[in-house]
Amino acid sequence: MILTKVDRVPKKIKSEDYSMEAVKLRQEWLSERKGLALEPITHLPYVPEMMRKNIENLIGSMQIPLGVAGPIEVHGEHANGLYYVPFATTQGTMLESYHRGMNVITLSGGAQVRIEDNKVDITPVFLFNRMNEAPVFIEWVRDNFESIRKEAESTTRYGKLLSIQPRIIGRRVYLTFAYSVGDASGLNMINIASYKACEYIKQAYSGRTRYYLRSNMSSDKKPSYFNLIQSYGKRVTADAVIPAKIIKKNFQTTPEQMRDFWFSSIPASFQGGMIGTNAHYANGLAAIFIATGQDIAQIVNASMGIGILELTEEGDLYISATLPCLIVATVGGGTGLPHQKKCLEIMDCAGEGKVEKLAEIIAATLLGGEISIMAALSNSTFAEADIRLRGR
Amino acid sequence: MILTKVDRVPKKIKSEDYSMEAVKLRQEWLSERKGLALEPITHLPYVPEMMRKNIENLIGSMQIPLGVAGPIEVHGEHANGLYYVPFATTQGTMLESYHRGMNVITLSGGAQVRIEDNKVDITPVFLFNRMNEAPVFIEWVRDNFESIRKEAESTTRYGKLLSIQPRIIGRRVYLTFAYSVGDASGLNMINIASYKACEYIKQAYSGRTRYYLRSNMSSDKKPSYFNLIQSYGKRVTADAVIPAKIIKKNFQTTPEQMRDFWFSSIPASFQGGMIGTNAHYANGLAAIFIATGQDIAQIVNASMGIGILELTEEGDLYISATLPCLIVATVGGGTGLPHQKKCLEIMDCAGEGKVEKLAEIIAATLLGGEISIMAALSNSTFAEADIRLRGR
Amino acid sequence: MILTKVDRVPKKIKSEDYSMEAVKLRQEWLSERKGLALEPITHLPYVPEMMRKNIENLIGSMQIPLGVAGPIEVHGEHANGLYYVPFATTQGTMLESYHRGMNVITLSGGAQVRIEDNKVDITPVFLFNRMNEAPVFIEWVRDNFESIRKEAESTTRYGKLLSIQPRIIGRRVYLTFAYSVGDASGLNMINIASYKACEYIKQAYSGRTRYYLRSNMSSDKKPSYFNLIQSYGKRVTADAVIPAKIIKKNFQTTPEQMRDFWFSSIPASFQGGMIGTNAHYANGLAAIFIATGQDIAQIVNASMGIGILELTEEGDLYISATLPCLIVATVGGGTGLPHQKKCLEIMDCAGEGKVEKLAEIIAATLLGGEISIMAALSNSTFAEADIRLRGR
Amino acid sequence: MILTKVDRVPKKIKSEDYSMEAVKLRQEWLSERKGLALEPITHLPYVPEMMRKNIENLIGSMQIPLGVAGPIEVHGEHANGLYYVPFATTQGTMLESYHRGMNVITLSGGAQVRIEDNKVDITPVFLFNRMNEAPVFIEWVRDNFESIRKEAESTTRYGKLLSIQPRIIGRRVYLTFAYSVGDASGLNMINIASYKACEYIKQAYSGRTRYYLRSNMSSDKKPSYFNLIQSYGKRVTADAVIPAKIIKKNFQTTPEQMRDFWFSSIPASFQGGMIGTNAHYANGLAAIFIATGQDIAQIVNASMGIGILELTEEGDLYISATLPCLIVATVGGGTGLPHQKKCLEIMDCAGEGKVEKLAEIIAATLLGGEISIMAALSNSTFAEADIRLRGR
Repeated sequence: MILTKVDRVPKKIKSEDYSMEAVKLRQEWLSERKGLALEPITHLPYVPEMMRKNIENLIGSMQIPLGVAGPIEVHGEHANGLYYVPFATTQGTMLESYHRGMNVITLSGGAQVRIEDNKVDITPVFLFNRMNEAPVFIEWVRDNFESIRKEAESTTRYGKLLSIQPRIIGRRVYLTFAYSVGDASGLNMINIASYKACEYIKQAYSGRTRYYLRSNMSSDKKPSYFNLIQSYGKRVTADAVIPAKIIKKNFQTTPEQMRDFWFSSIPASFQGGMIGTNAHYANGLAAIFIATGQDIAQIVNASMGIGILELTEEGDLYISATLPCLIVATVGGGTGLPHQKKCLEIMDCAGEGKVEKLAEIIAATLLGGEISIMAALSNSTFAEADIRLRGR
Repeated sequence: MILTKVDRVPKKIKSEDYSMEAVKLRQEWLSERKGLALEPITHLPYVPEMMRKNIENLIGSMQIPLGVAGPIEVHGEHANGLYYVPFATTQGTMLESYHRGMNVITLSGGAQVRIEDNKVDITPVFLFNRMNEAPVFIEWVRDNFESIRKEAESTTRYGKLLSIQPRIIGRRVYLTFAYSVGDASGLNMINIASYKACEYIKQAYSGRTRYYLRSNMSSDKKPSYFNLIQSYGKRVTADAVIPAKIIKKNFQTTPEQMRDFWFSSIPASFQGGMIGTNAHYANGLAAIFIATGQDIAQIVNASMGIGILELTEEGDLYISATLPCLIVATVGGGTGLPHQKKCLEIMDCAGEGKVEKLAEIIAATLLGGEISIMAALSNSTFAEADIRLRGR
Repeated sequence: MILTKVDRVPKKIKSEDYSMEAVKLRQEWLSERKGLALEPITHLPYVPEMMRKNIENLIGSMQIPLGVAGPIEVHGEHANGLYYVPFATTQGTMLESYHRGMNVITLSGGAQVRIEDNKVDITPVFLFNRMNEAPVFIEWVRDNFESIRKEAESTTRYGKLLSIQPRIIGRRVYLTFAYSVGDASGLNMINIASYKACEYIKQAYSGRTRYYLRSNMSSDKKPSYFNLIQSYGKRVTADAVIPAKIIKKNFQTTPEQMRDFWFSSIPASFQGGMIGTNAHYANGLAAIFIATGQDIAQIVNASMGIGILELTEEGDLYISATLPCLIVATVGGGTGLPHQKKCLEIMDCAGEGKVEKLAEIIAATLLGGEISIMAALSNSTFAEADIRLRGR
Repeated sequence: MILTKVDRVPKKIKSEDYSMEAVKLRQEWLSERKGLALEPITHLPYVPEMMRKNIENLIGSMQIPLGVAGPIEVHGEHANGLYYVPFATTQGTMLESYHRGMNVITLSGGAQVRIEDNKVDITPVFLFNRMNEAPVFIEWVRDNFESIRKEAESTTRYGKLLSIQPRIIGRRVYLTFAYSVGDASGLNMINIASYKACEYIKQAYSGRTRYYLRSNMSSDKKPSYFNLIQSYGKRVTADAVIPAKIIKKNFQTTPEQMRDFWFSSIPASFQGGMIGTNAHYANGLAAIFIATGQDIAQIVNASMGIGILELTEEGDLYISATLPCLIVATVGGGTGLPHQKKCLEIMDCAGEGKVEKLAEIIAATLLGGEISIMAALSNSTFAEADIRLRGR
């Protein structure tokens, strides 16, 4: 069959039509165009209307295998106790690897977790003819911070504008707006608030400048040192001490061997220009983010972290995970969909007032994933897990 | 209810038990522990057995809204024609934004796409007492490349060992093994092959060294310049020329305005230490990766790319997307699960011999996403889309 | 002749002995050991005593060819007028290239220059047993900032402690102390001040922590994004507009061609992971730093900058140089030596109250170097300059 | 006195006139313009004519304090024995600190040094209308490598074109030409050779492309991961083992304490986005580069290195320095000037066939500098050295 360019979804089925009829029409149309039966996608266990705020051109719902790992014992300021963590993934052996590490943390008294910073930023750019107009503008922005803040905050119940940090590059001024955003991921919130603020600035500064709302200084979903260094979302650190005998019993390796392995990755991380250093935060983040309705692409920033492994004076294993850029939500986005909400509920993390708790559980869970994979890599059982998987 | 540390999944339900009974037992157990009804997760539309190679501790399957974008016209060496691209996402307005950009590419004659490089690497580390033992070892590896290659390739039907690149750092030697991997993502394949090769080296080099299989030089799922510069997976470039009148009609902006916006993000990308520069490759990658059963965490590397926007001599819009680190698969991993396979089939990309085609379609699709978001950011309709979303 | 390990400089000639006799003894000893006449080094035009604070084991003084470039017209807040800039270099054609660019700026009305930020930082690290001790310590530091500041400032007349920024990584707390440092480069000053402050913290916090004075978070003389993003020393931006006709007359190229050249380097800068982007700031910095007695190794940080080249609406050339990490001094270090001081005087930049002026002149000068080399690279006269050099 | 824009060096004194008369005229002119006596610059101990290939607009010669450090025992493939290393610097206590570390290496049996790679590259960019023209061009370049090589090598006696590595970004093709360059730094050599090669390509490819000779992919004198990862100049590694008792006697610290200090800088290096990690390679490089007539700005690349510090099984100190980007010369540039040549002769490194030896001595010397500063930082004598300096 030859497709022609006019073969788009028929105009009468609008991309924002979430009726069962529209979904079926799209399915039929796509099925016909591609000469392809669309089961099982057409089973559509979700009522389409539920997905109104989450997608367009809806044709059904994907399914991803869902498992549970843990319990992990977490001692944070918001999470305190034992948690089972849902993982949605198609990557065999990964959940099990995390699971083992999480259990080992629990057996060792749990992970300590603290959130150090908590803000999201966006950097509009203002344009001028010559650079010497910039310092005057920056001074004006400083003098009018309160008015700008009011404009920004008029658009949101939860968002608070914390600061505006200017930087001149050539004849452009980049203003980094930092916000606290409550329990949402906050990206839409800060877009809208900053749009309002920038429109105000443009007008109040009497037409002597123009602007664009985004500039890639604050990097949303692109790895960047700006985010790593100044944090983007929550900056969270988790640590744990695992007694040598627990390491030996559970992983057939030793803290010394794990340190020796980890240490050998450090020169390589520097040589290769890795942004931060860790083993596989991204795997756990992806699985938990899918299970809990997060903005999946945020794993790009969230996975930049710094993992440290040392021996204690007693010869036990000290391990930490520092995540400067963890953006998660317990309200908004995909967090309200039925499966996703249920997964949040499994951790008692659904709804308002729960986002710090979720961040703490995630950080502790990643720590578990690191212990497990580094144990396996330190005694060559890592490749064997892959070999076993092939045999399943 | 107080959880105690022994409250793990009962030992009799092994994490690798995929029977319906085991799944139900896990659900009951978790439901009881958390005092929580687990619907809709318990609906379990997949036969659990299907997920044997994809997860452990299975409790059900997640659902993610699934839509379709396009068609996009692609002119690659493997993909050639019009393609509908499945997106699984919970991020409202994102699919629609990509959809508009893809249509605009199609209206303009399609995107050119080429794959420039195609390999995956892994870097074991070999340890010595002093650095001066390293050059001798490296020479030995060079002299014995053929034997090492045979060992590695003995473990795989599809993988080919292309080269071994050594680097000395202090008293360690890092050997970067580069493979071609066929239609799979190849990560398990190269783990197993390199394990075999390293065991051979260790033995044949008469115990004068020891090694670890991974070292963070080849960065799997962590952003890294090593990957960006030397490529990891497929290095793909797509470009398109969009006539000014199509830009104006579809986006109410102009190529000049889009260039002005894009250009203002360049100083910011340098200042912020962004790895590559682009607008939101990660969003499209996440949605397509979920829909097609990819290893989701690979978006961390895949999203590092270089997007260029220029005016042609005729004043039309030239735009390109270069993706040095695209790892995708059409066999293995999650690609064989029912929904995922169906989504691959929608693009005629399921199974062997299709991976380059899939890579080309993805690169062209990302180009569409860039056009659309940059158009919206250049004329301030971007924030308005967020505002509209709130009103849905 | 065989050297034995005991052949060190005789102990009686202490490395800090600056008498003419000691210098001569070292020369004789070295001459004898190496069987080598040491002229012209032995001419020693400096009185050795002068160099007491600048070197040890003195054997003479190096000579470097010294030339003068300019005048360059500078419009800063501290420099305002025409300046001749001394270059000490052995790199043929480099001074001349800068000279041409500086003259072209002057012919075009001069460069605007502004200093945006002005601080130097150092990051001691404090060690704890577990991460959860860190937030308490950070709170204590915040509560005791005034006492800490007094301790630090008690060691210096000019240094002011502006802020302390904490970051937790694992079980360590990194405290970034930022200072304003007056007309000196400030490195010794902040070492001493922070040492005093840290000793105070250690004691006042009752032995519950220990520390190291430096940690590589604040990167002294190593390229680092921390410095690029948060600035280290002075953050300076210079810009200029060069009329198309001046470009054509002086460089036989056009603004369009220069833009085309410059633009082609942008994708490469991203691909290659360049820190910032510019053509050759480091050359001018090295020559001026040597001529004016700066700490030469500071060119490592200073040379990380962001150069932007655009066309104005009139088709003229807009060019800017943003230098986030310029550390220079007009007092202390090598600035008081006779030649060095004379070179500072040529720019009216010797002594107190002159350091911002010097920074502004340097930034404008680098802009000149960029114009000149980019003109030459845009019309292929660059290689020809090298060919000409060979023929001299 | 008011300077007008016409006040440039009188046209009759050409910037390339190296006669004593021209120098004196420039001095008088500058002296008059600035109302400033120019002694001691006017002493001019060099015969101006000597500096013909090294500078323009000559007005005299700078002087920099010159000292000697060492001896350091080096065991390389080219350097083998004890070496005294000249340092030209104005940075008090720096030479002495290096000196102590170098002596400690010598007392411990010397440093091992090896050169792993040895090439310099340059990356011209070729422009096309659309990306799909790129693969054809790249194939053509591969097919015509021999002809291109001949053209390039026709311009040089020593340079050899080793390889051409292509990369497509959008519609541009970047060709990285790698050369071996003999004893020169090679920058002029590869500019001229590549210019010849590119002119040939342009013509032979029948006008279907145009190019620029440089693109910032190969980064000359700008810090860049491209260089760090693929090396630029010589890739050199030095290591040494220092017995605990020598550490204790010479530095009043222990290997454990030094390791503890060094280790605490690792999380900070990752957090701060340092390029590589080391303490102060740049200081030693600057001092030796000035003393030996190197291209000073090359310390920007050369200072990016990876330093590792560990304990041996016996509890002694293992330390290594890996320098991926060391560009040095023993012929050409400033190496033939009288003082500079003499300093090279002190190390038996003047002239042809000596450049690898020089590279090895430098790497070993930097290792000495690291030991010394890390010892001082591990026991708080670092700040005390600064305090002592102030008292001199």
